[in-house]
Amino acid sequence: MIRHLVLFKLNEGVSRDEARVQAGAKAFEELGGVIPELDFWQCGWNITERDIAYDFAIVSDVADGDALQRYIAHPDHQAAAAQWREFATWVIADLES
Amino acid sequence: MIRHLVLFKLNEGVSRDEARVQAGAKAFEELGGVIPELDFWQCGWNITERDIAYDFAIVSDVADGDALQRYIAHPDHQAAAAQWREFATWVIADLES
Repeated sequence: MIRHLVLFKLNEGVSRDEARVQAGAKAFEELGGVIPELDFWQCGWNITERDIAYDFAIVSDVADGDALQRYIAHPDHQAAAAQWREFATWVIADLES
Repeated sequence: MIRHLVLFKLNEGVSRDEARVQAGAKAFEELGGVIPELDFWQCGWNITERDIAYDFAIVSDVADGDALQRYIAHPDHQAAAAQWREFATWVIADLES
């Protein structure tokens, strides 16, 4: 099993309330039920005010490296990521679990 | 429940094999069994080569905001974080789950 972690930082001046940002969050929220490779899916907004805090995060599990690649290449993932690329950056870590 | 996520990036020129880095990883690995506020604890090295990949990550669950503060203030957490401050930076996200 691989745990795929993604932390998103909204670009300077972008707020969570913007329609495009809300739509992007919704797109990720729905991804869990759409992509078969996802054995676990959790995403949501950060709730802690700290200067090292990012804004949004995904915690997801896939079976292995091949499944991770299929998830990343999946059209619905690509579409959601394309939305977020307009207003955020992100970093990842993949843990063997 | 709050899911506390931390992604660590080793400083420029620091490698995972360094003794201080291995000791820091061990300190975090042991934290899960030491701090009572931790309802779930997972940590480990990133396994994916991507330019947006960080190096090490923690996934942990605590009951609520007070428990999160007690975890952060716990001497063993402070000691482990102090080790990592020597050779890495990190970002966090806290999700309500």
